[in-house]
Amino acid sequence: MSKQAMQYLSDNRAQMLEKLNSFLKIPSVSTDSVHKKDINKAADYLESYLSEIGFEKVEQQDTGGHPLVYAEYNKAGSDVPTVLFYGHYDVQPADPLEEWKSEPFTPEIRDGRLYARGASDDKGQVFMHLAVFEAYMKTEGKLPLNVKVCIEGEEEIGSENLYKTLREKKEQFNADFAVISDSGMVAENQPTILYGLKGFTGSEINVTGPDHDLHSGMYGGAVRNPVMALSHILASMKNEDEVVTVEGFYDGVEPLSDDERELIRNVQGEDFESSTGVSETVSEKGYTAKEHTMARPTFEINGIYGGYQGEGTKTIIPSTATAKITCRLVPGQDPERIQELLEAHIHKVAPAGVSVDVKKEKLSAKAYKVEPENALIKKAAKSYTEAFGKETIYVRMGGSIPVVEWIEEIYNIPIVLLGFGTPDDRLHSPNESFPLDSFDKGMDTLVRYWSEINSKDKH
Amino acid sequence: MSKQAMQYLSDNRAQMLEKLNSFLKIPSVSTDSVHKKDINKAADYLESYLSEIGFEKVEQQDTGGHPLVYAEYNKAGSDVPTVLFYGHYDVQPADPLEEWKSEPFTPEIRDGRLYARGASDDKGQVFMHLAVFEAYMKTEGKLPLNVKVCIEGEEEIGSENLYKTLREKKEQFNADFAVISDSGMVAENQPTILYGLKGFTGSEINVTGPDHDLHSGMYGGAVRNPVMALSHILASMKNEDEVVTVEGFYDGVEPLSDDERELIRNVQGEDFESSTGVSETVSEKGYTAKEHTMARPTFEINGIYGGYQGEGTKTIIPSTATAKITCRLVPGQDPERIQELLEAHIHKVAPAGVSVDVKKEKLSAKAYKVEPENALIKKAAKSYTEAFGKETIYVRMGGSIPVVEWIEEIYNIPIVLLGFGTPDDRLHSPNESFPLDSFDKGMDTLVRYWSEINSKDKH
Repeated sequence: MSKQAMQYLSDNRAQMLEKLNSFLKIPSVSTDSVHKKDINKAADYLESYLSEIGFEKVEQQDTGGHPLVYAEYNKAGSDVPTVLFYGHYDVQPADPLEEWKSEPFTPEIRDGRLYARGASDDKGQVFMHLAVFEAYMKTEGKLPLNVKVCIEGEEEIGSENLYKTLREKKEQFNADFAVISDSGMVAENQPTILYGLKGFTGSEINVTGPDHDLHSGMYGGAVRNPVMALSHILASMKNEDEVVTVEGFYDGVEPLSDDERELIRNVQGEDFESSTGVSETVSEKGYTAKEHTMARPTFEINGIYGGYQGEGTKTIIPSTATAKITCRLVPGQDPERIQELLEAHIHKVAPAGVSVDVKKEKLSAKAYKVEPENALIKKAAKSYTEAFGKETIYVRMGGSIPVVEWIEEIYNIPIVLLGFGTPDDRLHSPNESFPLDSFDKGMDTLVRYWSEINSKDKH
Repeated sequence: MSKQAMQYLSDNRAQMLEKLNSFLKIPSVSTDSVHKKDINKAADYLESYLSEIGFEKVEQQDTGGHPLVYAEYNKAGSDVPTVLFYGHYDVQPADPLEEWKSEPFTPEIRDGRLYARGASDDKGQVFMHLAVFEAYMKTEGKLPLNVKVCIEGEEEIGSENLYKTLREKKEQFNADFAVISDSGMVAENQPTILYGLKGFTGSEINVTGPDHDLHSGMYGGAVRNPVMALSHILASMKNEDEVVTVEGFYDGVEPLSDDERELIRNVQGEDFESSTGVSETVSEKGYTAKEHTMARPTFEINGIYGGYQGEGTKTIIPSTATAKITCRLVPGQDPERIQELLEAHIHKVAPAGVSVDVKKEKLSAKAYKVEPENALIKKAAKSYTEAFGKETIYVRMGGSIPVVEWIEEIYNIPIVLLGFGTPDDRLHSPNESFPLDSFDKGMDTLVRYWSEINSKDKH
């Protein structure tokens, strides 16, 4: 471990936080085209920071969508492995804005947490890596391993162009292993390495009835109400036991072994009631909430709209109704096939008198599982345990990181999912935050891990 | 019939249309508080027009909500009956604005129709009455009957304050009969008198799950999705046969007699497919679309919303979901009881893990049916037939006019529903319009009707 690098991070903590704040202040929302300039600003920020640190071949790659920031460091020597570090600089929309206690793009520290959109997902965690690289360069004049940096701007909208880039520039991005910090610990201060992620797929369902909103008194009784038709369709897809009732949905899903159930039972997970405010958890019949979130497929409606939403009443039969749905998938489920099953189901149950259009999500991902005994993962766990002073645990999680599937598919290298977020970070929600403690100990972990990687390969 | 009054309307047609346009230009949307000034402007317009015509006691009554415009004319003599003329100057919101071919509050004539929000419902029809009163005063120096004018500004939001006013100022508003032109003909140029209207009641259903939007990967499988819960609730309320499945909903509904079915069958109704653009009509099992719209109760979802509605995807479990519903009722159904049944049903089927709140519509109305053989109705039909050159028919309709129920309840006087709208008017929708032909013949009808009323009572 580099004591100088550690000292540097400690001595420059205030400046580092300041530098992170200027990154978080950029509203780089990828899903909304009004933020195109901010996306470019965030990419520019990364380009200049990487150049400052001393990376080479720093560039913004034109992906056809938002730019991908690439950089290399090759001076660690040919006997030292090369890591592909992946992260993303785009963030989720901040709405509903009125629920934020401080401005989403004006970072604020309260009770040991840094509040801002992207503080945890993923700008904060990307920044920790860059700060650690800076610390090594400034104190030792070099990095302990070779690095390829790949920070994209389209993670929150499906990483479509990243997939093309990783396939087309295989030579440029190839490495000995990959490290991604875009996930979290099961509890604050509980080192956690993910060995499994869910895949996902999604659709938008558009139901159209009359060609304009109708007076409900004049036409009620003559036409099918699109919102009611949509409600019938949605209600037919998951029952009150939280079982997905789309034919074939569970085909090929590997049963949860007793061993894995035991592993999940032993994970000190978050208290869902207190972190979400629900009166009681609900989960798929036959499975606990922890089992369902970590290892069973899910089906969620992400949004719905149709007809009048304003103040007061408007006695209409709406012309259209729309729902956005996504499924999280486990090993054994193919996203393409699931999309086909969803679409077939929707058309099968759609009632007469309305037309139903199913728009597939352009991108989707298969689930991912890795062997926890892999040496690179063991080293990450060791560093993590030392930095946090607590034994690292291995878990599967419900989130989806498409790039993980693609790196495995295209490069077939080990992927280390080393995340420092916590269950209270409120990712994708108002009041997203990241604990400063994770910031410090996470950087500590990374300083140790890179030294470990270096030392091992010298022996 | 007054030939001079008819001639006056014909000679001054352009000026009359101009005067109507200034009324239609005022965006007097009652449901939205940003339009409060416009509401007052519309009331001012009526106040000065009524004074100009020569009405007495012209005033804007403070109802606690939007003002009610009142005026009297008592000089027709005590041997002539007094009519209570009711109308409303408020309009529905114009959204979605992008679907209007011309600006909603910039009236435009195209193909013999006047396009504007309120052209038919109800400013256009209110104006016809005032124009006819003006014509009588300008040509004969008096009106053929005594008149009490009651034009309110809260019809589109439930007329809550009107109900109080009608009860509290019983002496002031009492009359021998009432005339309302806030309805339409079953087909263009087909004189139609309504002898039955539906009642209505409504609720807003609010479903709350987690206290903030959650990441669907982290929490999918642990909490109930409020949009899915709402879909299950809504789907349980009306089945695919368009039968309302709320227990007790149809209790007390009088069966449709063979005579009435025959009457409905013989009404040349509109072609629902072509006027609404649906591929096929759907209606309650066992009833035709005409029977269902005219004489059977209905249940409609007027709007729904929850979660992400923007561009792209946002993989969240929404915190809340809301639906607005209204039912149209027939004789035998009590609005209060129906509200209770809806609420009980919703709470009964609401799944665990979410909290459900049902907000009742403050106001509701019973259905209304009158005897078509009433002498005042027969006279209206005679005038209507003469003006349009076609036999008047009597129909029941699906719309609800709460004031009709209240006038019956409080004053117990005959109510003549004399409407000149047409099925193509697109009430409550973008591109609302009113045929100029209805405008001319409708005023012709009114000139004839007031003379009829006068002559009969002299005999």
